[in-house]
Amino acid sequence: MNKVTPRTLPGFMELLPQDQILFNNMYDRIRKVYERFGFLPIDTPTIELSEVLLAKAGGETEKQIYRFNKGDSDLSLRFDLTVPLARYVAEHYNDLIFPFKRYQMSKVFRGERPQKGRFREFYQCDIDVIGQEALDLMFDAEIPTVIYNVFQELNIGKFTIRINNRKILNGFFESLNLINEASDILRVIDKIDKIGSREVAQELLDFGIAEESVDKIMNFISINGNNDEIITSLKDLNIDNEQFNHGIDEINEVINGMRDFSVPEDYFKIDLTIARGLDYYTGTVYETILDEYPRLGSICSGGRYENLTAYYTDEKLPGIGISIGLTRLFSQLKEIELIENSKRSLTQVLVIPFDRKDMNYTLNIASSIRNAGINTDVYYQNKGMKQKMKYADRLDIPYVILVGENEILENKATLKNMLTGEQDLLSIEEIVERLTK
Amino acid sequence: MNKVTPRTLPGFMELLPQDQILFNNMYDRIRKVYERFGFLPIDTPTIELSEVLLAKAGGETEKQIYRFNKGDSDLSLRFDLTVPLARYVAEHYNDLIFPFKRYQMSKVFRGERPQKGRFREFYQCDIDVIGQEALDLMFDAEIPTVIYNVFQELNIGKFTIRINNRKILNGFFESLNLINEASDILRVIDKIDKIGSREVAQELLDFGIAEESVDKIMNFISINGNNDEIITSLKDLNIDNEQFNHGIDEINEVINGMRDFSVPEDYFKIDLTIARGLDYYTGTVYETILDEYPRLGSICSGGRYENLTAYYTDEKLPGIGISIGLTRLFSQLKEIELIENSKRSLTQVLVIPFDRKDMNYTLNIASSIRNAGINTDVYYQNKGMKQKMKYADRLDIPYVILVGENEILENKATLKNMLTGEQDLLSIEEIVERLTK
Repeated sequence: MNKVTPRTLPGFMELLPQDQILFNNMYDRIRKVYERFGFLPIDTPTIELSEVLLAKAGGETEKQIYRFNKGDSDLSLRFDLTVPLARYVAEHYNDLIFPFKRYQMSKVFRGERPQKGRFREFYQCDIDVIGQEALDLMFDAEIPTVIYNVFQELNIGKFTIRINNRKILNGFFESLNLINEASDILRVIDKIDKIGSREVAQELLDFGIAEESVDKIMNFISINGNNDEIITSLKDLNIDNEQFNHGIDEINEVINGMRDFSVPEDYFKIDLTIARGLDYYTGTVYETILDEYPRLGSICSGGRYENLTAYYTDEKLPGIGISIGLTRLFSQLKEIELIENSKRSLTQVLVIPFDRKDMNYTLNIASSIRNAGINTDVYYQNKGMKQKMKYADRLDIPYVILVGENEILENKATLKNMLTGEQDLLSIEEIVERLTK
Repeated sequence: MNKVTPRTLPGFMELLPQDQILFNNMYDRIRKVYERFGFLPIDTPTIELSEVLLAKAGGETEKQIYRFNKGDSDLSLRFDLTVPLARYVAEHYNDLIFPFKRYQMSKVFRGERPQKGRFREFYQCDIDVIGQEALDLMFDAEIPTVIYNVFQELNIGKFTIRINNRKILNGFFESLNLINEASDILRVIDKIDKIGSREVAQELLDFGIAEESVDKIMNFISINGNNDEIITSLKDLNIDNEQFNHGIDEINEVINGMRDFSVPEDYFKIDLTIARGLDYYTGTVYETILDEYPRLGSICSGGRYENLTAYYTDEKLPGIGISIGLTRLFSQLKEIELIENSKRSLTQVLVIPFDRKDMNYTLNIASSIRNAGINTDVYYQNKGMKQKMKYADRLDIPYVILVGENEILENKATLKNMLTGEQDLLSIEEIVERLTK
């Protein structure tokens, strides 16, 4: 028969079981923290009507979408979890309880040109809070607090949640009469880590920004210090712009909120250069950087938006959310060896009968151990004892239980510690006790 | 602005959080049992190359597939988890440990005509074991044992796992020289519950089967009794066909294996009318019926196959597996009210500050309780106390903690049981103790 080469597409992550165990473990821990903070699960369809999903999209995003026809339907795979959330909230508005705190941890799809660290299919782990008419600013402090707890739980080293407020940026550029150029200016500013501030200033001048404005911009983005110092410096600019000053008040309240949440001060920092590309953010915005690995870029981003559901409903539903791109994060953490290898199996004990006729006794033991909540495998294949032990060894199964004539006669079994080689003839109760302690 | 009507496609299940909690709970419990029996997780891509995914497909399946082009690539969404498993095992052959026991619980996609109880996007919860060269028959007993444990865990009432062996069927039809007509005959037999045995016999005659053979077929499918009686009756047919008799030996061993696994005898039954449509099954086959709701059809099916990976590799990799169609099962169980409503939230306690100035103390309490592993929400919105309590009430949150001036003064908080209305002023330690007991 002609064979087809078994392969997956570039940009699609597929893991061996050992890594899948690690990945699932991270997934589970993120989920646990999200639930710990009162977020509720939803699971929207992977496929949506293009008309619905792309109500807002355009430009780069639209080009990346997996879009196709089936029958008479124009369909698309979701490219994020935020637009489906907007659709979900608008559709189920009357059945939801607000503020609606939801998490969704699902795959999204983007047909990007494949490149290192970019995936075409990847998990996003999102939390969002949607309010009716208004949404308290405390949520702007709660969201990064959840993320602080997630990354503490994942134990991935020191990180910093960088916080900014779009009102500060918009107000500032308004005060310079540069609001229309704002996104271009921010794109240049975004390169500051790579090209340095002198080059940024030059590019802004080349772009046609007046020297006086460039000076003010460079002065603005060079504001630094601790969080309180930055807020003081912003106030000291004495800019007479309502939006700007409202933004300062907001970021101040968010910072104080995070202190109330007991997030250590060195884990969050105001960063005036953060804007987030997406045009729907209207207030607080976040990025998260691993302190030792800034080149990885932001591992968790989000912000506040006022009008996400405007394409579907007249209700005013402001929201705030953040997203962990878990597939990418996992692959990065593996690469820099920030997560250790797991065992090759989730199994705690392998029960091995010497002989097929010992199967009934063997299975009884296995059942007793499973009933105690212990993951238990049984070796059935007709192989030599060496092969049977090798299976346990290769799967990193820490204990083996041996069952033979002698064991059955004594109504016991031999428990062997695969690490130390130690083995003891024990009753089932004794075995369960050893394995559960 | 013109609004787009927010909606999902027919045949795509989307749940409100309350039902999503139930669904996830079932998902988690299935996964726990799979892991309890030593199965390892994998997570293959949703999108595969059509050339790879459809190496074997054809007919009805192929028509249902969501297939499309992106750039130069001919892509398809997976329609089951078995073909991706075959591809996975062939691709990662050298990195896997055999027998390879894997579970995958993911969405699959079939663009069927939408009808009641049919979904176009649905979760399959699969376990399979793949062997190298050979795979012990004990796995044919383990697989339904896992399923027995899953459904016991899900507590969905009395069910019966129906077991047959394709070798018995093939051998029987071989002995009648009807092997080429076998699939048509089985299709007619499959209707016996609906149309009765007399009508089945008539259809077989109409189909051109000789009267003598029809008699033998009717006699064969009418074999009944307990499992041992059926095996005796099969032997008593004295059919001189090697495959037939091999099939009897296998089913006998599988039945005895399940007894060794302590699966109660009334939960599994030999049923000679079960064939499973899929042509890749070669030995044991399974279906599972809810005793009180046979009209729901099989809620869990599978079987043994010898050659699934033959399209990708020359290695001989026999396997056996079974699948729970969780989306359909969930929707059926909801409909017949076999699963109860869950709470509307996963949150155990809502902390409510009387006033914004109490926020710091409030958040400290919330942190302490979360650190004890308790899902905790905080009410931030600027509303009256009645509104705040209503939020807890509508989300079925069982406890509320009230924080006001008096509480802060005493370094305590008021814990209110939402069910009984009882409330007590307690220290944080006392609150944690109450909530964790």
